[in-house]
Amino acid sequence: MDSSALLFSLVIVWLAAKVGGEITQRLGQTALVGELLAGFVIGPGALALVAPSEFLGGLAQLGVVILLFEIGLESDLDCLLRSGLQSLVVALLGIVSPFLLGFAVARWWGLTPLGAVFIGAALTATSVGVTARVLSDLGRLPEPAAQVVLGAAVADDVLGLVVLSVVEGLARPRGVSPWSVVTLLLGAVAFLTLAITVGVRLAPFFVRWVDRMQVRGSLIVWAVVFCTVLAVLAERSGLASLVGAFAAGLALAKTDRRAHIEERIKPVADLFVPIFFVVIGLHVKIGHLDPLSPRGTLVFAVLLTLVAVASKLVAALGVYRADVRRLPVGVGMIPRGEVGLIFAAVGLRGAVITEELYTAVVLMIVLTTVVGPIWLRRLY
Amino acid sequence: MDSSALLFSLVIVWLAAKVGGEITQRLGQTALVGELLAGFVIGPGALALVAPSEFLGGLAQLGVVILLFEIGLESDLDCLLRSGLQSLVVALLGIVSPFLLGFAVARWWGLTPLGAVFIGAALTATSVGVTARVLSDLGRLPEPAAQVVLGAAVADDVLGLVVLSVVEGLARPRGVSPWSVVTLLLGAVAFLTLAITVGVRLAPFFVRWVDRMQVRGSLIVWAVVFCTVLAVLAERSGLASLVGAFAAGLALAKTDRRAHIEERIKPVADLFVPIFFVVIGLHVKIGHLDPLSPRGTLVFAVLLTLVAVASKLVAALGVYRADVRRLPVGVGMIPRGEVGLIFAAVGLRGAVITEELYTAVVLMIVLTTVVGPIWLRRLY
Repeated sequence: MDSSALLFSLVIVWLAAKVGGEITQRLGQTALVGELLAGFVIGPGALALVAPSEFLGGLAQLGVVILLFEIGLESDLDCLLRSGLQSLVVALLGIVSPFLLGFAVARWWGLTPLGAVFIGAALTATSVGVTARVLSDLGRLPEPAAQVVLGAAVADDVLGLVVLSVVEGLARPRGVSPWSVVTLLLGAVAFLTLAITVGVRLAPFFVRWVDRMQVRGSLIVWAVVFCTVLAVLAERSGLASLVGAFAAGLALAKTDRRAHIEERIKPVADLFVPIFFVVIGLHVKIGHLDPLSPRGTLVFAVLLTLVAVASKLVAALGVYRADVRRLPVGVGMIPRGEVGLIFAAVGLRGAVITEELYTAVVLMIVLTTVVGPIWLRRLY
Repeated sequence: MDSSALLFSLVIVWLAAKVGGEITQRLGQTALVGELLAGFVIGPGALALVAPSEFLGGLAQLGVVILLFEIGLESDLDCLLRSGLQSLVVALLGIVSPFLLGFAVARWWGLTPLGAVFIGAALTATSVGVTARVLSDLGRLPEPAAQVVLGAAVADDVLGLVVLSVVEGLARPRGVSPWSVVTLLLGAVAFLTLAITVGVRLAPFFVRWVDRMQVRGSLIVWAVVFCTVLAVLAERSGLASLVGAFAAGLALAKTDRRAHIEERIKPVADLFVPIFFVVIGLHVKIGHLDPLSPRGTLVFAVLLTLVAVASKLVAALGVYRADVRRLPVGVGMIPRGEVGLIFAAVGLRGAVITEELYTAVVLMIVLTTVVGPIWLRRLY
């Protein structure tokens, strides 16, 4: 493609993202649902205005790296430590229960073990953004249940990235063995621990060093470079690149320039994160959804959605504190949102799942992300 | 390339840009010289860490579109109108004199008419950024000579884009005729006039409409979308895409949200504009520079540099006001900077110039951009 065609495809993607996001936001949904649907509408599955390309794929990858960097930057490890054990128990149950239920259902549906592991892993995600937004709209953030959900969501981001690293490692041609699962698990935990402990200690020196730079806009560029370097390092160590981006965000969140970086990363994120969601939508082909076939993608998507909802409600059984309402905690963890989409993208790229399964997973993510907030509002 | 390799190449480009820019900035030069040299160092001409790719090419294109948008946003048409006729005369001479001298020398050197037109056009550029920075460092911005140079540079940006559109149009396979030159010239002027007059009138409505959007970060995304839409429109009308980006900046500069947009476009520009300069450097191959050959690229580059310096000094003869010093005006217009580099990129992409000529043009741009500020400082 010449650069004019590249620019044109980018304009279509941006326009679609803004229009789609605006429509769903006005309907009381999150923008990402609209961005995803917009991607489907302009993609090869529908209007065929834009096809996936190296350029758009690279921008989407940059977008999701920046998204994870932003999530890390906004994550408060201290908040997790405060809501403490209760959040951790809920988070662990919120990972284990969807994984086991999803794996069982996928095996019963006839998937390979690797495919079933992936489906289980994709179900573990929790989108803190969607629920936090709803709770904040309702003015319920200070309540104990909200604190437990948010704490669990932070823990879930960390645990989810570990799961993602394992799944991504398994998707590589080395094959699956119990030993490789353990290696990947330990590798991801070690990388995160190392990156966070060393990162938190080094970040203030890094910031002070960058402040001495003379070129305009150094801090934001160095922050993004730091984030992409850690992302590439994580990827080269056999982990998900997003683990590195998240760790970079966590490390810089502890410096006194956090607000400065956060403010300047925002416009960049506003421009590039939606590209990730649109590109996810580009890959969805609705032709797979034969509503009449009892073994079709649509039936599997609905089944996955039921599993997704039920398994997070089960996780709420981990609430043992008397002052915390169980149902809001469970419902608050239903939306899979952007984290689930990252799993879907990794699965398709690694050819762990077919295009049919990809469509089913994306549909499940859209449904949970739409149903969760509606249900949560009813509870208050 | 898989997305990991894309991200890796981007990290190398960013690191090189920051290190190179920081070094030249500390040596009293502009960052872009360092970014350019860094691109050469990491590129196929030297270390071969990174090769040009669709992804980097697209990002570079996005970077230069954002650069022109920013220049438009910061351009003050009123300032040009104030310094008025004197600036316009200098600007016109600053376009005509390098063009004619460059064309003559290139023809004498043995280039085709089209190649010689391109060389002449590349010499017309003036980089307002470099000179404005030096004058502001010296505290000389309020002086009449500085006002004339800056006014002329704004006029030069507009006229230069018209010339660029003509050259880019000629580079397309339709061939060169006096008629096509006139059509392109009129087209570029009509597009700019139309885009600016209509744009300035519509921009306030656009801004008010976007302010009613509910999705986070709408204004910055819509501003960039507006800019890329105009860029694509310009390109589809047979003009340089940068004309559209520049017009979008000029139009939004007239709204009451200018400061808001300017502040938010900065981090985006900080990240993506340097990619353009690094990618320019990637294409430079120093093997062409045989210092011993009397007809070699190096000799031609030096010749071009002499023409570049002399022709802008000639333009200073257009100073007729008694309160304006001639020499600072001429010297202030010597740096070709980012505008010259845009010409070089267009020429290489359209295959108007060979890789040897490209290297010579880039070398001329580097030399003028380094010599101009040093000389200007000596004059005060």
